Amino acid sequence: MQINFTILLELLGTFAFAVSGMRQAAGKQIDWYGAYILGLVTAVGGGTLRDLLLGVTPFWILDGKYFLTTAVALVTILLFKQSLLRWGSTLFLFDTLGLGLFTVVGISISIDEGLPFWVCIIMGTITGTVGGVIRDVLLNQVPLLFREDIYALACVGGGAIYFICRYVNLPEGLIELIAALTVIVFRLIAVKYNVNLPQLQSIDTKASQR
Amino acid sequence: MQINFTILLELLGTFAFAVSGMRQAAGKQIDWYGAYILGLVTAVGGGTLRDLLLGVTPFWILDGKYFLTTAVALVTILLFKQSLLRWGSTLFLFDTLGLGLFTVVGISISIDEGLPFWVCIIMGTITGTVGGVIRDVLLNQVPLLFREDIYALACVGGGAIYFICRYVNLPEGLIELIAALTVIVFRLIAVKYNVNLPQLQSIDTKASQR
Amino acid sequence: MQINFTILLELLGTFAFAVSGMRQAAGKQIDWYGAYILGLVTAVGGGTLRDLLLGVTPFWILDGKYFLTTAVALVTILLFKQSLLRWGSTLFLFDTLGLGLFTVVGISISIDEGLPFWVCIIMGTITGTVGGVIRDVLLNQVPLLFREDIYALACVGGGAIYFICRYVNLPEGLIELIAALTVIVFRLIAVKYNVNLPQLQSIDTKASQR
Repeated sequence: MQINFTILLELLGTFAFAVSGMRQAAGKQIDWYGAYILGLVTAVGGGTLRDLLLGVTPFWILDGKYFLTTAVALVTILLFKQSLLRWGSTLFLFDTLGLGLFTVVGISISIDEGLPFWVCIIMGTITGTVGGVIRDVLLNQVPLLFREDIYALACVGGGAIYFICRYVNLPEGLIELIAALTVIVFRLIAVKYNVNLPQLQSIDTKASQR
Repeated sequence: MQINFTILLELLGTFAFAVSGMRQAAGKQIDWYGAYILGLVTAVGGGTLRDLLLGVTPFWILDGKYFLTTAVALVTILLFKQSLLRWGSTLFLFDTLGLGLFTVVGISISIDEGLPFWVCIIMGTITGTVGGVIRDVLLNQVPLLFREDIYALACVGGGAIYFICRYVNLPEGLIELIAALTVIVFRLIAVKYNVNLPQLQSIDTKASQR
Repeated sequence: MQINFTILLELLGTFAFAVSGMRQAAGKQIDWYGAYILGLVTAVGGGTLRDLLLGVTPFWILDGKYFLTTAVALVTILLFKQSLLRWGSTLFLFDTLGLGLFTVVGISISIDEGLPFWVCIIMGTITGTVGGVIRDVLLNQVPLLFREDIYALACVGGGAIYFICRYVNLPEGLIELIAALTVIVFRLIAVKYNVNLPQLQSIDTKASQR
């Protein structure tokens, strides 16, 4: 039953990530097929890079449900465009849920590969954030990751909590729950109170040419 | 003899893809070396990503002919710039030939790896289209793949035909020919009659910020 | 002792590459975290792609010092922003040192994998230059690699010298030193005398659409 719950959350996360990719595509002269691809890379991009770096078979090669979920997301967008306006905050919640879960999945897979804890945290962060970076690069935008929001930091925070809980020998399932919640709450608070890291100021015009 | 014919087509495809990368580079303050690199990634980018995803050695590591063909393409462009104007439709034909062949090569390699049919079709599509996407990203453009043309869909269509032919037990070589022709004809018709998928309309200004 | 010297140079190169990524980020509404990531991908991006192509474990998974060095680079930038103005040419020197060393490291690792010489040179060039390309793509710029500077050609030149020295049976350490110096001197001279490859002129407006 726990597995089913995880899969449900994972599919919700995939759905939300796919929708976030497609919404970015809207109004930019991108056709349905392009929107599907953008939604797909947003949803599976992070996990794919993680698997390439770990040298394991990309997760979606073994399982078609991510492609189907993205197709469902596309149909949903086409059918319920107007309602999506009112869904804004719900989607943001899904997206944040997905971020938390994807981060935990990335950490968990990396632990299975026997990697040191700091690499696991990096892999978790990559799993959660790189899809959005690829989406922004394909749409010719400076990645949101670099400009606003602290969701990458939320992944790192959740990863740290994961290993603290592990150090004190909490049971596996509980660790994952706490770590995912940390990512989620961290991001929700940061967005609600508009917490941002300081920006890097221009050093000088001339130097920044190089 | 069949092998030689395949290699000839593959090199023609590589040549056409390389030229398409270099033409995009022209007039953008890109030097010869940059043009060569752009042509190269356009030609080998899709197959390289496919091989990384499949966990096999990238095809060009075992064989220098793709680099040489790209060099020939660069020299050709530098020598015959003016003639290339009149070659426009010929190059488009090469490019389409390359698309069909690269798609079939990608599918065929994926079958050898024992992957399910839908993954093979995805790998074929990646082989045919990702080089052009990398080219556009490097040139700071929203990929053509997302905006116009339905060549990615042509790859999927050709891939479907491939597996239908396989299901009815046609001989290997014939299957490959039919599938490649499907991609080619599909694209030629789509371009000739200006068939496009609908675009994804803007949902709203506010929502598309996120 | 030779190993320590190599590691020192490698860390200097990492530091310089990280700083070059962060300087590009400055003044572009990028926060500290984003600057760190940009510095990191600039420093490790080339070696990571090389390792993915070679099918070996990415070098930074086994060793945290690249992440720490990038952190030191970020702190340095935040603390000594003003001084960095005067450091301009020193940093350029570091960057060039790093380029030479990274190229040689890439070649050396590829030889260990038993690859033919021209693949080794390509891998050396990838190690030295791809980090900067990823940096530019993430910052939504046409890569500097394509527009100015001939540092990619310097890598190829250094790689050629590497294999010439190897052919005449010079000792390993000496080969590496000569090859790295070739890259470095090549680039310094090219920048000092403003040597550039010719640019690829526009073919025609219409053709460049495709």
